Amino acid sequence: MDATPYQDELVSLRRELHRHPEPAWCEYYTTARIVEELEALGVDELLVGPEALATDARQAVPDEATLAEWLERARETGADRTILDRLAGGHTGAIATVEGGDGPGPTVALRVDIDGLPRAESTDDEHAPVQGGFRSDHEGYMHACGHDAHAAIGIGVARALSEATFPGRAKVIFQPAEEQIGGGPAIAESGHLDDVDALLAVHVGLDHPTGEVVAGVDGFLAVSHLEATFHGEGAHAGGRPEQGRNAVQAMATAIQNLYGIARHSDGATRINAGDVAGGSAPNVIPDRAHVAGEVRGETTALMEYTRDRADQVISSAATMHDCEVEIEHGSEAPSAESDDLPRGYVSEAAQGNDRVETVLESDSLGGSEDAAFLMQRVQDRGGVAAYVGVGTDHPGGHHTATFDVDEPSILVGVEVLADALLGMANDEIDAESAT
Amino acid sequence: MDATPYQDELVSLRRELHRHPEPAWCEYYTTARIVEELEALGVDELLVGPEALATDARQAVPDEATLAEWLERARETGADRTILDRLAGGHTGAIATVEGGDGPGPTVALRVDIDGLPRAESTDDEHAPVQGGFRSDHEGYMHACGHDAHAAIGIGVARALSEATFPGRAKVIFQPAEEQIGGGPAIAESGHLDDVDALLAVHVGLDHPTGEVVAGVDGFLAVSHLEATFHGEGAHAGGRPEQGRNAVQAMATAIQNLYGIARHSDGATRINAGDVAGGSAPNVIPDRAHVAGEVRGETTALMEYTRDRADQVISSAATMHDCEVEIEHGSEAPSAESDDLPRGYVSEAAQGNDRVETVLESDSLGGSEDAAFLMQRVQDRGGVAAYVGVGTDHPGGHHTATFDVDEPSILVGVEVLADALLGMANDEIDAESAT
Amino acid sequence: MDATPYQDELVSLRRELHRHPEPAWCEYYTTARIVEELEALGVDELLVGPEALATDARQAVPDEATLAEWLERARETGADRTILDRLAGGHTGAIATVEGGDGPGPTVALRVDIDGLPRAESTDDEHAPVQGGFRSDHEGYMHACGHDAHAAIGIGVARALSEATFPGRAKVIFQPAEEQIGGGPAIAESGHLDDVDALLAVHVGLDHPTGEVVAGVDGFLAVSHLEATFHGEGAHAGGRPEQGRNAVQAMATAIQNLYGIARHSDGATRINAGDVAGGSAPNVIPDRAHVAGEVRGETTALMEYTRDRADQVISSAATMHDCEVEIEHGSEAPSAESDDLPRGYVSEAAQGNDRVETVLESDSLGGSEDAAFLMQRVQDRGGVAAYVGVGTDHPGGHHTATFDVDEPSILVGVEVLADALLGMANDEIDAESAT
Amino acid sequence: MDATPYQDELVSLRRELHRHPEPAWCEYYTTARIVEELEALGVDELLVGPEALATDARQAVPDEATLAEWLERARETGADRTILDRLAGGHTGAIATVEGGDGPGPTVALRVDIDGLPRAESTDDEHAPVQGGFRSDHEGYMHACGHDAHAAIGIGVARALSEATFPGRAKVIFQPAEEQIGGGPAIAESGHLDDVDALLAVHVGLDHPTGEVVAGVDGFLAVSHLEATFHGEGAHAGGRPEQGRNAVQAMATAIQNLYGIARHSDGATRINAGDVAGGSAPNVIPDRAHVAGEVRGETTALMEYTRDRADQVISSAATMHDCEVEIEHGSEAPSAESDDLPRGYVSEAAQGNDRVETVLESDSLGGSEDAAFLMQRVQDRGGVAAYVGVGTDHPGGHHTATFDVDEPSILVGVEVLADALLGMANDEIDAESAT
Repeated sequence: MDATPYQDELVSLRRELHRHPEPAWCEYYTTARIVEELEALGVDELLVGPEALATDARQAVPDEATLAEWLERARETGADRTILDRLAGGHTGAIATVEGGDGPGPTVALRVDIDGLPRAESTDDEHAPVQGGFRSDHEGYMHACGHDAHAAIGIGVARALSEATFPGRAKVIFQPAEEQIGGGPAIAESGHLDDVDALLAVHVGLDHPTGEVVAGVDGFLAVSHLEATFHGEGAHAGGRPEQGRNAVQAMATAIQNLYGIARHSDGATRINAGDVAGGSAPNVIPDRAHVAGEVRGETTALMEYTRDRADQVISSAATMHDCEVEIEHGSEAPSAESDDLPRGYVSEAAQGNDRVETVLESDSLGGSEDAAFLMQRVQDRGGVAAYVGVGTDHPGGHHTATFDVDEPSILVGVEVLADALLGMANDEIDAESAT
Repeated sequence: MDATPYQDELVSLRRELHRHPEPAWCEYYTTARIVEELEALGVDELLVGPEALATDARQAVPDEATLAEWLERARETGADRTILDRLAGGHTGAIATVEGGDGPGPTVALRVDIDGLPRAESTDDEHAPVQGGFRSDHEGYMHACGHDAHAAIGIGVARALSEATFPGRAKVIFQPAEEQIGGGPAIAESGHLDDVDALLAVHVGLDHPTGEVVAGVDGFLAVSHLEATFHGEGAHAGGRPEQGRNAVQAMATAIQNLYGIARHSDGATRINAGDVAGGSAPNVIPDRAHVAGEVRGETTALMEYTRDRADQVISSAATMHDCEVEIEHGSEAPSAESDDLPRGYVSEAAQGNDRVETVLESDSLGGSEDAAFLMQRVQDRGGVAAYVGVGTDHPGGHHTATFDVDEPSILVGVEVLADALLGMANDEIDAESAT
Repeated sequence: MDATPYQDELVSLRRELHRHPEPAWCEYYTTARIVEELEALGVDELLVGPEALATDARQAVPDEATLAEWLERARETGADRTILDRLAGGHTGAIATVEGGDGPGPTVALRVDIDGLPRAESTDDEHAPVQGGFRSDHEGYMHACGHDAHAAIGIGVARALSEATFPGRAKVIFQPAEEQIGGGPAIAESGHLDDVDALLAVHVGLDHPTGEVVAGVDGFLAVSHLEATFHGEGAHAGGRPEQGRNAVQAMATAIQNLYGIARHSDGATRINAGDVAGGSAPNVIPDRAHVAGEVRGETTALMEYTRDRADQVISSAATMHDCEVEIEHGSEAPSAESDDLPRGYVSEAAQGNDRVETVLESDSLGGSEDAAFLMQRVQDRGGVAAYVGVGTDHPGGHHTATFDVDEPSILVGVEVLADALLGMANDEIDAESAT
Repeated sequence: MDATPYQDELVSLRRELHRHPEPAWCEYYTTARIVEELEALGVDELLVGPEALATDARQAVPDEATLAEWLERARETGADRTILDRLAGGHTGAIATVEGGDGPGPTVALRVDIDGLPRAESTDDEHAPVQGGFRSDHEGYMHACGHDAHAAIGIGVARALSEATFPGRAKVIFQPAEEQIGGGPAIAESGHLDDVDALLAVHVGLDHPTGEVVAGVDGFLAVSHLEATFHGEGAHAGGRPEQGRNAVQAMATAIQNLYGIARHSDGATRINAGDVAGGSAPNVIPDRAHVAGEVRGETTALMEYTRDRADQVISSAATMHDCEVEIEHGSEAPSAESDDLPRGYVSEAAQGNDRVETVLESDSLGGSEDAAFLMQRVQDRGGVAAYVGVGTDHPGGHHTATFDVDEPSILVGVEVLADALLGMANDEIDAESAT
């Protein structure tokens, strides 16, 4: 297909979303805008917010106050209030279904994610969103991983599918809360994947330039969130230092040793203490400290090795400084592999696409994704899945202040993914036997 | 004198202030209430907010947004708006002058401090403010060092002086921002101490029980604030860990080594990293971290030794992790000693007081106080000064969540301090020769 | 071939060597015994000690006193004094050449290593060398990596080659100082590899059980030694702690942060502070500390990344504690890959061997080896090389106190390696074109 | 008295001892030389080695091999073999008794210590022992705390007493193993102090210049030795890092946190990790590490606070890294105070001495001393004691490589101490009532 006619609308949508990054489960404005677009397309079925989710399976949901604050922001920004009302309480995301109109056939699906990150965006004049006037309006938050482009690609694919005729049906899933590994389980367990024969997920960038497509990404790292709260005891830092039980000292000891957990000969591991705080005032021995971090592994076993060692480090650091500590393991994502069948369709679609210069059959992600939950669900039930990389020139790395998407790659994504989905539908793939 | 008739009013005032703790330079409600009380007493001169301060000498003033937020809170709590308007912009505190009415004579003065601390108050049922229904209304802030009682003592002394006749005049100084070493210089350089012949400052507790008085505290530690901001670089913690420059790792290394700075054979030193934070999200290598802390020493030289070593630790930790760091040295307070002349008057007043069981001539503070600025100013100009300890049973240590004041000690403070001030006035002490 | 007749002699030799482990460049007794065995076989050429080495290319040679001490021990243990005299000064190792006697042909070669490790051997009754009475005589030193078996395999292969007829010639290289990455370059640059068309190197164990053979090991980690010496200043720990510059505190800070160097997304890295010491007496602030360690990487670039970060960590830790530090990068080994041609011959020999149950074409080493120097030399000059794994049940891991070799695997090694070498010789492989 | 005639002999003896520093319980050569000197003086009673000690009360005795090695060194250096035989097994030191010859009277005593330190002496040309040719012959060991001068002073005082007539008797105690807090208890519990009415102990230097005398030093820090041995598990650092349990990482974590133990508001504390080692080879995950250190406190309670915190730090660091640890608390010394009575005699003797320019009644030691054991023993039984400081210009601090004694101060020590002892004897002090 040719997505050229969609260009202006998709770029405009992407920029609008880029200006309004919302963190996990707070994608109120984002969801409302997506729903508006899907309603305008006239998709055959549209599940909004709680209808799309297994509510109880949501992970990493922020507290009520945070949710309420972002809902209010979305209202102030001008999102449709009727839609917002359906999303309240951290029920974001949507699923659109398009009937192919050409008789029975398989169910094919695309999953995109839509959340932003809690990090400040660059104010550098060289940064394209600054130049283009669409830098984040929400100071301290940013679309630093391209999910704004993913949402636009999802809308583009939904439109392409709506305009096509094919056997069976297609779904486009707009998943919330990827960055917190929060949304994957809620979609996976919603039941809406249970009839899916072939699932594609997509990510832009990943250090591939515009014009490059990876037909099936592998090498997902399993990941688990990790939170530790140290409880010590305050004391006057000048007058009675010995009466304190120093939670910040415990935390610092833990952090030093977390990064020092032994590497493993079975494969890659990762650890990060990404968000930390402690103490209350310069002249009070800190009575409390908190670390939010994560561990990863090339396999689930490697992730668990790192997580178990992390627990030991953290609890010993607390004991060392006479503190108590609560450790919570938050959301987890497994590792995943792309299947050959959908990989082949994507590869073929990419090779036949004029915007694409290079097609890689596979590449290693080296990161984690809660798309793994969705892929595993589909694969467990006999379907097939692939995680597709759509290259985009990005000046800064993922999750950095100068990350940006090269907008022409949005059309690459729409065309290649729509063609691959339609190819599978038209061939009436029988996933069960193909796996 | 007998302060029994003041009891209900002072306890009630102390509890009201305890419910509304305000941090340094944000004592809007507190100042407004103090001013109302002083106006009711009809003191001879009343300097409010900026009139009492050398504005430019204020240290550790919070940002405009914080100041505005606390001003708004004070309005909402029902403080007199006319008074609040005079305080806006972080100009809190007041000085009352009472003319003795018995001809010329020396100027004697009492200084009390009035700020609260940024720490959460205990919710334990055993905690008297919980039982009495006057626990902090400002969650996360607390009168954990007894400055609520100090303010009440100040009002009680002002009333006692107003009801007395004596040669010369007396001042009662309600100083803001002690906890941040922020207010001392602003009062010291205001000019309002320049005619003071004898200054008393007061602190309740200090591990002395109700019924014990320390006539002249010594052993103040010199102190300096310390702030360090580490700048690193974010990166995807799973995908590109090597591209980050980890500011939290630098901070943890610094904290570990700050507490490990070598003890000094010349005397006591202290260091604390009391308020720390870093990073942005669990899956991003932290690009920023911040430490607010302090160093102390039994002498200014010992404080400087510790501060210089701290600078070296912090800057090396930054270099180690390829980060930049900015180090700021904030407010400083010198050390100080109580003079024998006022110590004697306090001792005599305490020994003659039925509420007092034990009088200690001196004791070591082991902490810091920006009262040192005021004492030094008076002493430098030929006056005398003493720092008086008024014992109070306190269940938790100073700066802890269960700190509380045993209210009968408020009357001890009023009576002993008023009697000592009146004693010096009536004896027409000639401070210059007495030092 | 059938090595059964060699069995008693080789097991006996291996145990004798096991009892006399000698560290890198101190393999005096070991070399003397090997030379005696080779002389008894009547090989065609025998290069001993300095004759086999590029003397100047030796790395990690210990100091004269250590060399002299081990030479003396070898004398006391009863080694041939004439041979020892030729080895003095750390010139150990030997190369035997066997002419095939069947006309011109290629030169094939086997390399084995012969050094022990500076670690204490288990005294557990379950430990076979304890039971068998051949536990290390040199307390604190141990054959914990199977080089005793390697030497025995080398002798067995030399004997098998001596008894065979084949085109060309064969060499057996007994390389010293593998554990210190010290001997590889000295052999590689000796000129004695320059006519070698096909080189095999061998290692027992590597977590493969007896009966398993890996035809060509890959995935060598590049490695570099790292030494850091911190210079501080002593002081009386009680009387003048502030006058010290604490080298042990600097070292501890460095160690903590060395292990915390960020993992790299391009592949595996390793770091170890394996031998550390500091200070002089409990009551003196430590004025000196020393770390001997190593860094590794899946590629040379990854090793260098880790090494550069290590340098920064170490020098910043010194600065932090006001110490000086000298950093030395010792011996380095590159990474290496096994070629398919020799891999095929080994695989075929193994598959045809009754003692072998399983043949793996390849496996990842996950460690480092200075065999890489020899392999690279041969490969650079148009030859081929493979690193062969001969499985052996080993109760403890490599380098642990309970490591031991399952002796039947020695015969597996002799037979498979001899057959593979003879196969290549008989086929008159033309390495140049085969690569 | 005038010690000028003793000068050459005492300087010569001091230099001889300086050349042969011996660590705690290995003072074989030193004791033999002292005994020779005392025999030459013809003292009335001479207790040698085990006769002077409560053998079982010795603390910190090195292992047999070390003792044997130093005994052998002493033989090689030419010490009297008959005397050496009496000292074997770590029974060093001596006590000389001189009868006053003037009828009954009190028993007065002087205690000096005689051991050296395990630290290398400066090779700087400016260092007087280098210039004078009496730098340490025992590389790695040094008289860095002046005990060589103490021994010379002891001999000088013994000679002075021998030449005098006085009521009662006098003892000169040459105590071994002061640096390890090893000898004090063995002398204290030997019974030889039980008749002592007045004890003086002496130390040169302590930052006082030649010509200055401190009549009675106070402010001894209580001290306790601390040893920790971490047991982990080795593993191949490249091949199986995750299988190790890293004892060096545990040790580094412990060291970082030991120095970070909170300071105490009750007074000074100290901690030092003065002698550490771990691991075995660069490429093996360290399976063992050892720390020898000490804790001190201005009171025994403060020492114990620090020691208890240290235990918690060490055991938690072991747990953190999956290691076991054994913690041993070695020798301990209490704190002590000088009595006024002997202080007065020393002060008077010093004031009457031409070599003395300044007499300080008291000063704070800020260190520890196992003289405290002896002083306490005497004081507990109704006697009196004082610790006397004899100033000496010392270019480097105590325990540093450039420490040296200004030799004229030896005569100051002899004269002041002999005069004070004789003064007390002649006044027939009645210690019991005088205390």
